[in-house]
Amino acid sequence: MPEVSAADWQGLAASKREDNLRKIPEKWRLPQSLTERFTEASAISVTDLTSIAALVELMRKRAVTSVEVVTAFCKRAAIAQQCVNCLTEVFFKEAIARAEECDEYLEYNGRPMGPLHGLPISLKDSFNVKGTQATIGYISFLSRPPATSNSNLVNLLYSHGAVFYCKTNLPQTMMTADSHNNLFGRTLNPHNLSMTAGGSTGGEGALLAMRGSILGLATDVAGSCRIPALCCGLASFKPSVGRVPFGGGVPPGRLGSPGPILPVIGPMGHSIRDIELTMKTICNSDTWTFDENVLGVPWRAVQPYTRPLRFGLIRGIPKRPLHPPIARALHSCATKLKAKGHPVVLLDDKVPDIWDSAILAWKFFLLDPKKTPISYLKQAGEPVVPSLGTTMVEEIRGFEPSLDGLWDMNLERFKVLHAWHKVMVENELDAVLMPGNSATAVKHDTYGLAPFTVLQNMLNYPSGILPHLRAEEELDRSFVKEDAAYEPPYEPKVLEGLPAHVQVMGKAMKDEELMEILKVVEKTLAE
Amino acid sequence: MPEVSAADWQGLAASKREDNLRKIPEKWRLPQSLTERFTEASAISVTDLTSIAALVELMRKRAVTSVEVVTAFCKRAAIAQQCVNCLTEVFFKEAIARAEECDEYLEYNGRPMGPLHGLPISLKDSFNVKGTQATIGYISFLSRPPATSNSNLVNLLYSHGAVFYCKTNLPQTMMTADSHNNLFGRTLNPHNLSMTAGGSTGGEGALLAMRGSILGLATDVAGSCRIPALCCGLASFKPSVGRVPFGGGVPPGRLGSPGPILPVIGPMGHSIRDIELTMKTICNSDTWTFDENVLGVPWRAVQPYTRPLRFGLIRGIPKRPLHPPIARALHSCATKLKAKGHPVVLLDDKVPDIWDSAILAWKFFLLDPKKTPISYLKQAGEPVVPSLGTTMVEEIRGFEPSLDGLWDMNLERFKVLHAWHKVMVENELDAVLMPGNSATAVKHDTYGLAPFTVLQNMLNYPSGILPHLRAEEELDRSFVKEDAAYEPPYEPKVLEGLPAHVQVMGKAMKDEELMEILKVVEKTLAE
Repeated sequence: MPEVSAADWQGLAASKREDNLRKIPEKWRLPQSLTERFTEASAISVTDLTSIAALVELMRKRAVTSVEVVTAFCKRAAIAQQCVNCLTEVFFKEAIARAEECDEYLEYNGRPMGPLHGLPISLKDSFNVKGTQATIGYISFLSRPPATSNSNLVNLLYSHGAVFYCKTNLPQTMMTADSHNNLFGRTLNPHNLSMTAGGSTGGEGALLAMRGSILGLATDVAGSCRIPALCCGLASFKPSVGRVPFGGGVPPGRLGSPGPILPVIGPMGHSIRDIELTMKTICNSDTWTFDENVLGVPWRAVQPYTRPLRFGLIRGIPKRPLHPPIARALHSCATKLKAKGHPVVLLDDKVPDIWDSAILAWKFFLLDPKKTPISYLKQAGEPVVPSLGTTMVEEIRGFEPSLDGLWDMNLERFKVLHAWHKVMVENELDAVLMPGNSATAVKHDTYGLAPFTVLQNMLNYPSGILPHLRAEEELDRSFVKEDAAYEPPYEPKVLEGLPAHVQVMGKAMKDEELMEILKVVEKTLAE
Repeated sequence: MPEVSAADWQGLAASKREDNLRKIPEKWRLPQSLTERFTEASAISVTDLTSIAALVELMRKRAVTSVEVVTAFCKRAAIAQQCVNCLTEVFFKEAIARAEECDEYLEYNGRPMGPLHGLPISLKDSFNVKGTQATIGYISFLSRPPATSNSNLVNLLYSHGAVFYCKTNLPQTMMTADSHNNLFGRTLNPHNLSMTAGGSTGGEGALLAMRGSILGLATDVAGSCRIPALCCGLASFKPSVGRVPFGGGVPPGRLGSPGPILPVIGPMGHSIRDIELTMKTICNSDTWTFDENVLGVPWRAVQPYTRPLRFGLIRGIPKRPLHPPIARALHSCATKLKAKGHPVVLLDDKVPDIWDSAILAWKFFLLDPKKTPISYLKQAGEPVVPSLGTTMVEEIRGFEPSLDGLWDMNLERFKVLHAWHKVMVENELDAVLMPGNSATAVKHDTYGLAPFTVLQNMLNYPSGILPHLRAEEELDRSFVKEDAAYEPPYEPKVLEGLPAHVQVMGKAMKDEELMEILKVVEKTLAE
């Protein structure tokens, strides 16, 4: 993008944002008296809305039309955008036209297009949807023309009747937990605007929490579909590599990484039931026809468990002691499961150091000698966002990748894999309960590295996030450890009311088993 | 192994070979008048023996005992070893003891140990079997103690009742098609001792062709389970990566390669039926419990095809025109399939250059800056075997790997993958008929690079070899192209009678579908 001088980037970003605002019909706009209160400095919640369940079923039964449903979600997305700045591309008009197509199809053929007939689905900006841009927050990508082809998964979901209506915000380089870039600005957490919505799929997190979407598609190489879920009080699922077609999107850096940690696409939503339907629909398609890099393994039928499940339990790591709300959520979850007869095995001292594993994982993300993401920033003269610096912890700073070193790093990873495998097999574990983060959502630009979520990418174990409890100073008090070096500092008054969570990690490629286990845990938590 | 001086290696090798001979009981030894004729310079065939079918069923039904079966195969293996020098480790005594265990188990429990109850299985030397060495032909590995643990697949197969009785020869570094090293010497092709038995699992190829085994386990990263099969007139199957537990063996080089082409284990045998039983038994085990790197995907039930299958057809490449016997076998196969109503689509000009893909693949095998295999040779002062030089074609010579270059190589591979995927999908192909090599078995040290087999490793497509026809100068004459630059030269009189073959390549992870297709092809060829 040689035509853009360094001085231009702010103007380009402002013009892209105005363009987005224009795509929200005048009558859907919130009064300025309201929107001017929605800033990243205000600690108010904007999520107090009812949830929607089994929407697909309703459309199948013609209780509602796709046009009605899609229009409703476009409206909610417009509200969300004006509250928490979560959208990057707005294509409501095209979505309603597609919904009409779905309605006509049903009318004419007497049957739905597929299991996702007429369903509005929102997408992270890195997906390609024909006719829309995929700038992924880089000013320099503004000069790229709109996509002329869809991401492979978009094609697959279209074939099942999906309707896409907007794309959502993400962090510069997609490698931080703050969905903030110079092009679209910062996405705010609906539960408390002064907190991060998480990243890298933070736009989805915020949109879903605002009920501006019933199903969001995220990518995840270090926690990007799970961090926004745990920050925004949602459920999400990171499948094993190769289950969901990944190709055809826009990468934040150079293609062709020789690193062993591969990104996946995972769904974000409001319940495991919705997530299961999504995974089933995707995996039971002929995925390989859509994507040459997918494994093409169909979704196996796993019977609901009637036997007790064996859970491992990780209660934090010395470098990142759990904030009291998370310690309480985890304790509550383990206690409820034990009460139901599911054994829980403490793993804290039995597994490889989770912090060290995260450092190794992050080094795998820094294998490009050309440092392509930084060159994208330089092309437009735009600055690095503050959160990017927070992931550059001491152990990573100054890391220079080499081919010889990469062989040794792979061996290190093998050792971690082997040790975890041994723990899982010897303890006959079905899954592991652990935090997805040591804290709830935290203040902007303080999330840092993501040791509790990158672990599953490194191991290639599937993993799910379930919302559970909320930060409540009174109840959390008994979980405070006076000598703990909380990072970021634990400020109970600031965090009050934010969603807490648990993470449930399964075994490699046993996505189907984990889904059944997540249902057990979700049900147990609700009782 | 610092205690070994360069001058010692020949003595060490001789002593290991004598030790092996001693493990063949005196009464099983062939007369010297016979064995002295078995040299790599003699063009005689030693395979004129009957085949064995469905042996497992017989043992299940107690028509024979495992001790009887295992003893018979040990005897045949002893004969094979004395004819074609195919064994590296001989543990007949331990095998017969294990067979007794199997017989007692059946007697006591009234049911077999598993689907492979009492079955003798032979293994490439790179597998670990407790109590035996795995030198893989490196003199310097002689100082390593016998294995204290089994390869993961060995453990898995033991759990199904398998009996292991010997390990088999392979090339120095495992990266040539001549199973020749300074420790065990050269394995000869039973059909013609002056020809290569193939590699890297050439010991298995020779042993199976001598009926010294009914099922052999090979590894394959460039054709190592398929090349010996096509050289020795056998069937073999290279599965997709991650279907069969790979871990726990001895690698010929450094562990931790960042290259994208991963080795697999595949069965070699006499029929697709035997190979299918093996694959099914392995994949329907809880493989992940045995091996943390396996995908753990069960064997899917695929119904036999009743519809016509769509085959692609590759008839060679300009750099390696097909020797007339292979051109005839392929033509015969395609003609028979067409006659049965299966459409055959010519792909010669539609796919990426297969030679270029092989060059790219070979570069991925040379990513170790430390050149570890060469250092293993230097430790014992042993020379490089001649065949290793023949894979170092002009395009590879002088290649120096780099991290930056590896990113670009990965992109190159993506392009090849994408192009093949497009061809497979757009032509709605079920499989591709192609040569596994441009020739039958060829003279020792002339096989060179393996473009037709490394392709499937690069694509991660499963692939099978089926024996079909034999070199017959009279019949092959009409397939001679006068202007073709055959490599190695086509010498019909020298090749007369050697087995020809076809290769059938399936689609990524569609191992089950390919197995059904191989049955169709095998049946069609037999008619």
